[in-house]
Formats: sequence, structure tokens, C-alpha cells
Amino acid sequence: MTLPALAGSRLALIGCGHIGGSLALALAGRVGAVVGFDADPAHAARAVALGIAGRLAPCASEAAQGADVVVVAVPVRALAGVLSEIASALANVSLVLDVGSTKAGALEAARSLPAPGRFVGCHPIAGTERSGPDAADAALFRGRPVVLTPDTGTDPAALALAEELWRQAGAHPQRMDAATHDRAMAAWSHLPHLAAFALAGAADACLEALGAGRELGARSLLDGTRVAASAPETWTDILLENAGPVREATALLRARLDALDAAIGRGDAGALGALLAEARAARLRLAGGGPP
Amino acid sequence: MTLPALAGSRLALIGCGHIGGSLALALAGRVGAVVGFDADPAHAARAVALGIAGRLAPCASEAAQGADVVVVAVPVRALAGVLSEIASALANVSLVLDVGSTKAGALEAARSLPAPGRFVGCHPIAGTERSGPDAADAALFRGRPVVLTPDTGTDPAALALAEELWRQAGAHPQRMDAATHDRAMAAWSHLPHLAAFALAGAADACLEALGAGRELGARSLLDGTRVAASAPETWTDILLENAGPVREATALLRARLDALDAAIGRGDAGALGALLAEARAARLRLAGGGPP
Repeated sequence: MTLPALAGSRLALIGCGHIGGSLALALAGRVGAVVGFDADPAHAARAVALGIAGRLAPCASEAAQGADVVVVAVPVRALAGVLSEIASALANVSLVLDVGSTKAGALEAARSLPAPGRFVGCHPIAGTERSGPDAADAALFRGRPVVLTPDTGTDPAALALAEELWRQAGAHPQRMDAATHDRAMAAWSHLPHLAAFALAGAADACLEALGAGRELGARSLLDGTRVAASAPETWTDILLENAGPVREATALLRARLDALDAAIGRGDAGALGALLAEARAARLRLAGGGPP
Repeated sequence: MTLPALAGSRLALIGCGHIGGSLALALAGRVGAVVGFDADPAHAARAVALGIAGRLAPCASEAAQGADVVVVAVPVRALAGVLSEIASALANVSLVLDVGSTKAGALEAARSLPAPGRFVGCHPIAGTERSGPDAADAALFRGRPVVLTPDTGTDPAALALAEELWRQAGAHPQRMDAATHDRAMAAWSHLPHLAAFALAGAADACLEALGAGRELGARSLLDGTRVAASAPETWTDILLENAGPVREATALLRARLDALDAAIGRGDAGALGALLAEARAARLRLAGGGPP
């Protein structure tokens, strides 16, 4: 196959926030013109000011018109609507990719495209609790894994181009089927976000009821709730889109909390110590597979 | 009152691990000789090698014999036993302090001392998931709060000396009653540890069942479970010692998890978004009171 070239290609960026903006910045000089669109006019204006997009289009389909590569970086539940809106503008496109945290729904949404084989579902395992174009960072993907979820209908040239694009952005592409990805991310990211949201609310309520101790600022709570500062709209989408695996993981979390609570309630040092030792071993296994 | 001098005072360090070792290193040159004891002979030997203690005593009471200041830095449930063991050696002591994460039980344990007024319950809000003398760090307490929990029987000279000692170690002393401290720490530290232990076990079990995705290494899970690597024996003690406030906080956490899970189960974007927005606001309030 002849690989479409990335250099000089016209890139459409639909959604100019933390992830989309970071990708455009990471690809600066490695692609041609970047035409941006963002449903939030203030974000669109910031994207031009920050050099994320060279110019803006007034709607998603005009941004996609004539593009070689279309990056759709919108909340996961907005993806289907965007793809349907831009479908008629994709006649000559080589690659359409998304960057969302759930992939089964993304592949489903892409089936409505005129050439679904040129869509490649992508999920960079990177990002922070920040959002919007001002959180865009050219180095965000450097050294990080990015999961691509091709299926049997995926065009090999589109897949190869997507892998090249992520390598140019500094990431390490790997392939995984969409269902496996979604279950793995329920463990690695969706459940930790859910736990952080619950923990932030519970700890804040404790301190509110106590009326004291707000200033103590222990690192364990601050680290454990960092991602609870994430955008609620992004996470509403992700948690609903991946509801099955997220709820299965949540049931495991609740079972462990129940077992810990019961051991504390019984004053059972032996059982509690065993649960904590198992949890410590689990944490060491998890940390073995990623950054410390 | 005449304040006993810290400079030149003989310090007994009973428990030469992460917290006790860090305190001795932070006070190096600001106190006289440091005599150490640790129930673990390997830890005791490391304490001398690392300069935490100048020499070792063969038991806790011999370490305390003739000391001006006694620092007891042992797991919280070992405190009562240590105090009872050293009680007869404290005739001329100016100050006995502990460094444990729960304080009501510490004050209770100190009532058996011949001069309970010279005991000051202390809890430096510092520490990491590491343990043992090799994790000792002279800078651990720098700029961090330390809570002192005097009661009506506390000797003002002992309290003033304890505050001076912590200031010399770089910490910012503040006073709080023991019950308030224990409830505040349930929110700031004990519940976050419990949540991290439960989250580590649940996420690890998900990945184990999936048989894939261990390499993805997302930051949200790694940050959210950092403290699950803490020593199980330390945390068994703390969670049992502060069982009441910990279980009240755990009930709030479970109620929030249940509400999130129910909203996901109903596919209720409005309710879920509202819960996440509340949680985000809680996180921002928490972070306003401490390091980012």
C-alpha cells in the first residue's frame, strides 16, 4: 500500500480543548495547515491565539471540508453527532480519528460514515484534571501509550497513518480491541475517577460537619482526589458511555470497602492486616506496569 | 516559667523508622546525644549507620533512662506498651511526645505515666507511603503542620518545649483537642488510605480478570493508590484506633459511591453531572486548604 503522507497534510481539528489542542501543538511543523472548530467560541478564539489552529471554520463540516486528516476531540457522547455532521465533507479524507476514553461506542458511531474503514478509534493514555485550550501542552503525549482500536473493517493505510501521527506526537501506539480497551480503562481510569469524586465529597462533608481542620492539607487526600477536579461534563459522558465495565469495577470497589469496614467494625486486626497486605501487593503490581 | 533548653538535651528515640528517624535527622545539631531503640534490630542498626541515633540502647527503658526528651515513634497501638515500659525511667524527663496519627488513644495511654502532664501528643501532617529508617528524611517536616493535642493537665513548659522542638525541625505547630484532631484526620488521611487500599485491590482484580491492559499505567489510578503501598501494620493500627470516625467517614464514602452508581445505572446524565459538579467543588475547597 502507499501510505498517505503526514507532512503537508491538511488537518481539521474539531474540538480545540486539552487533548485536541495538545495534539495539534505536538504535530506543529509535522503537518500542514490546521483548521480548527470548537463549539465554544471562546475556546476557538483561544486556540488561534495559542497557535493550536492556524484558522477557524464556522462549523465542524466546514473544518472537515477538504481535510486529509480529521481529528475529532470532543466529549465521547458528542462524537456520533459530529461524525454525522461532517460525513458529507469526508470524500477525500485519508483518516478520521477520535481521542475519547471509551472506544466501543466510538466504533459504533463511525459505522454511519460513508467510509467507516478510514476511521481509527484512538485513546492517548495521557491527560490531566485540567481542561480547555489553555491546558494544551505539546509534550502531553511524549512517552505515553496511545491505544488504537482497529476492527476488521479498518483500512490498513488509515491505521498506519494514525500510528505515524501518534509517533510524530511522541506517543507509543499499541493496538487493542475496543471491548478490551474499555474494560481495561474502567480499571485504570474510570473507577479511579469515580472513587476520587466520591472521596472528595465524603471528606469535604466530614470537615464541614466538624467545622475544623480544613487547613491541615494532608497529601493522601489531595493526591487521592486530584482527578476529582476534572470537568464534570467530560466524565458524565465517559461514565455513562462505559457504564457496564464501570459498574462491574464499582461493585468490586464496594465489596472491598465493605470487607475493610467490617474488619474495622469487628476490631479484627488479623483480617484487616491481611486485607491491607493484599491491597499493598495489588498496588505494587499496578505500579510495576507504569510510572512510579 | 523557665523553659527547659532543647540545645544540649539528651534525646531518647524509641522507634527509629520513617517518622522518628526523620525527626532525629531534622534535629541533628539542635539537641545533644540521641540514644535510639528499635524493636527491629535491623532497623536499629540502620539508624546508627544513617546517623539517626548516636548510640543504641538494648531496650526502651534503657534508652529513656536519663533522657531530657523522649520521642516515642512506634505504631499507635504499641504506644501504651512502650509508655508503661519506660514509666519508671522518666523521673527527670522534661517532655515525652509521640508522633502517631490518632491522638485520643495516645492521651489515654499517657494517663498511666507518673507525670502525665509532661506527655504531649503530637502528629506531624507529613510522611509518605515509605517506612523504616531508610525512608528517614531531615526535610520531611519542613513547612508542614504538626498538631499538638494538650489537655487541661498538660504541663505548659512541656508543651512549650514540644512546640520549640517541632519549630526546630521546620514544622508549624498548632494546637487542637484530640477528638477534633482524630475526626479531621479521618477525613484528611484515614479515609483516603482506606479508599486507596480498596481501589488498588479492585482495579488489580479487574485487570486480573481481563488478562490484558496491565501495561497502560494511567496516572489517575497510580496517584489514587499511591498510599496503598503504606505499611499494613501501621495502618491496621491507625484504622482500628480511630474506628469510630473512620467508619462514619466510610459510610459517607459508600453513600456517595452508591449515588454515583445509581445515576450511572439509570443513565441519568443530569443527576450524574450534578454529583460530579458537587464533587469537583468539594475537591477545590479541599485543595484551597493545602498544597496543590
